[in-house]
Amino acid sequence: MVKVKVHVTLKEGVLDPQGKAVEKALQAKDFHGVSDMRIGKYMEFTLESSQVERQVEEMCEQLLANPVIEDYRYELEEVVTS
Amino acid sequence: MVKVKVHVTLKEGVLDPQGKAVEKALQAKDFHGVSDMRIGKYMEFTLESSQVERQVEEMCEQLLANPVIEDYRYELEEVVTS
Repeated sequence: MVKVKVHVTLKEGVLDPQGKAVEKALQAKDFHGVSDMRIGKYMEFTLESSQVERQVEEMCEQLLANPVIEDYRYELEEVVTS
Repeated sequence: MVKVKVHVTLKEGVLDPQGKAVEKALQAKDFHGVSDMRIGKYMEFTLESSQVERQVEEMCEQLLANPVIEDYRYELEEVVTS
C-alpha cells in the first residue's frame, strides 16, 4: 500500500481568475507585495495496486486533472502497515 | 522576493465529501484500491515583504485557510532576480 500525493496546477500561460481574485482579496485586507498567485488542487489518498505508477497516471489523465489546461505531478510514500 | 507554496488541507476528523465523491468517480471508471481520498488547496505566489513568515501566517489565518476546519503549511523559496 502506498500513500499518493498529487498536485494539479494550471499550465503555464493559462489565466487563473481564482488566483487573481484571491490576490485582490488579500490587497483589500492590506496584505501587499503578493503577485503571481496560482491556485491548484492537492490530493492525498492511499492506493493498493500492483501497478501504482501506471494507475496514478491514468487516474490523473482521466479524472483528477484536465490535461488541456492542467499539469499534474505526484509523489509516492510506502505505507508501513503493522 | 520569495516564492511561497501553501498547502491547505482539511483537519483530521473533518469529513471530506469532495474526496468521497472523487473516490466514487474513480471506482465508476474502474480504478480500484483507492481509499482515504482527501482534497485540499495548493497555492503558489511570490511575496515581497520585510516579514515574510509573519505575513504568510496572517494571510493563511485570515483568508487562505479556514482555521475552524483547515490546517495549512507553507514552504519558502528565495527567488533569485538577475
